[in-house]
Amino acid sequence: MIYDAAIVGSGPAGLSAAIVLKMRGKSIIWFGSGDMSQKIEKSAKISNYPGLGTVSGHELNNRFKEHIKELDLEINDRLVTTISNTGNRFMLLANNDVFEAKTLLLATGVVAAKEFPGEAEYLGRGVSYCATCDGFFYKGKTVAVYCANSSYLPEVSYLAGVADKVYLFSPDRNISVKEANVEIQQAGFAGIQGDKKVEAVELNNGEKISVDGVFILRNAISPAKLLPGLEMDGPHITVNRQLQTNIKGCYAAGDITGRPYQITKGVGEGNVAAHEILEYLASEAAESK
Amino acid sequence: MIYDAAIVGSGPAGLSAAIVLKMRGKSIIWFGSGDMSQKIEKSAKISNYPGLGTVSGHELNNRFKEHIKELDLEINDRLVTTISNTGNRFMLLANNDVFEAKTLLLATGVVAAKEFPGEAEYLGRGVSYCATCDGFFYKGKTVAVYCANSSYLPEVSYLAGVADKVYLFSPDRNISVKEANVEIQQAGFAGIQGDKKVEAVELNNGEKISVDGVFILRNAISPAKLLPGLEMDGPHITVNRQLQTNIKGCYAAGDITGRPYQITKGVGEGNVAAHEILEYLASEAAESK
Repeated sequence: MIYDAAIVGSGPAGLSAAIVLKMRGKSIIWFGSGDMSQKIEKSAKISNYPGLGTVSGHELNNRFKEHIKELDLEINDRLVTTISNTGNRFMLLANNDVFEAKTLLLATGVVAAKEFPGEAEYLGRGVSYCATCDGFFYKGKTVAVYCANSSYLPEVSYLAGVADKVYLFSPDRNISVKEANVEIQQAGFAGIQGDKKVEAVELNNGEKISVDGVFILRNAISPAKLLPGLEMDGPHITVNRQLQTNIKGCYAAGDITGRPYQITKGVGEGNVAAHEILEYLASEAAESK
Repeated sequence: MIYDAAIVGSGPAGLSAAIVLKMRGKSIIWFGSGDMSQKIEKSAKISNYPGLGTVSGHELNNRFKEHIKELDLEINDRLVTTISNTGNRFMLLANNDVFEAKTLLLATGVVAAKEFPGEAEYLGRGVSYCATCDGFFYKGKTVAVYCANSSYLPEVSYLAGVADKVYLFSPDRNISVKEANVEIQQAGFAGIQGDKKVEAVELNNGEKISVDGVFILRNAISPAKLLPGLEMDGPHITVNRQLQTNIKGCYAAGDITGRPYQITKGVGEGNVAAHEILEYLASEAAESK
């Protein structure tokens, strides 16, 4: 099936767009977290969302969850790791499955995580963001995995079943695994070294471990890495007043388009982007007649 | 007193900006209606305001009213009829009083009312939007008044006390006045005629009445008339992604900046404009040191 729109991100911008597109009868595939927005969830107090007075972030996030339940919206919790643009279609790779859509809305929030030294340099040359996509290249080999939190443990298990040896790094000190060939490292992950391809990982105690590949599993992939060719301005996607990016059919909304990082800006931009997507779909339909 | 910001309009955009500026400790004068947004009030059902599920317009408008009460925000219900820009200050004329502000946010909504033939042509040459401002020019003379609704009757009374004769036009068939020199017309107001200045009003039955001046009292003055020099694109104020207009210190947000006419767009843009105003005030304060 070809979806009318793919939305990546379940914060206020993605939500607002999903509501509009669903109400207008469009088919959407919406990638994000069932927890909606962790950033909102963790906010102690929000007073500037008009109409709600003062609420806790937890309460607002719950209201968002109720809203999607009421409208029968579904969030797909697969992690989108690569998007390719075939001219008039977008192909999204998420946990080894491919989804196809006519339009794309990037509402991923800002990437707070800092890149590791060597991460950008060796991406595609031993560095991967998706274990189930690239894991089989490391059959019988040695890999390192950086795992932002325990939600990525199924990917670690998958790697353990393929690779000979897995070195696991995580900021979560309580992380644990069953597989005997996974060795949890106490030292921090400090960077990636290599020549033409990945050869080793650096630890923050100065040590090095030789590896054939590195998997970085965290929900914060820079949009320009997700979709090659996307025009960025620092950490933000460049958009115009219609929330159009430089790629035809691709829109962006919310924190990822720039400051201020505000919930109201997100819901506003998500709504505007959705209306632009509706116009785009209508004009595409008219052209193909 | 010089306010940090003047906000014109009490719909979602004005509200969202007022909340942000108030929370950041800025002094604001906020012009609008205690009824907030009539457009929202009259909406039967709203389902695309994230976090509220499906609500009636009346309910959402009431929630907006509760929010401003909680934050101790006040709406000034005077009608702003003229704004002048003195370079680094804005002077707003509202019911004959002048208010001064460092920055200006126009969040007036779109002007739905169609202009009358001759209205733009004779503005300032016999056509006025403010009885208490220009009424004394018509001492002992004859004027026509177009009165959108009964809320403008105090201005009609003021004119009746100054002019010799007042012809009153209104779409409200139940409108009534006490003053003996006010003659309510049953025929509709159709346009303004003159040569160098206003000479007569046209009725929709083909008749004409000779007058010296025409007062048009309705809450829908085109922004370019309100603030001369403002760059417009059709009925919309031209803004950039930061909601800046072509006039320094002047911002616009909500429906007045263009489609889609959506509540979420309004709250988003009001928030962004308020943050830009905060930055502008900070840089102005730094410069004056």
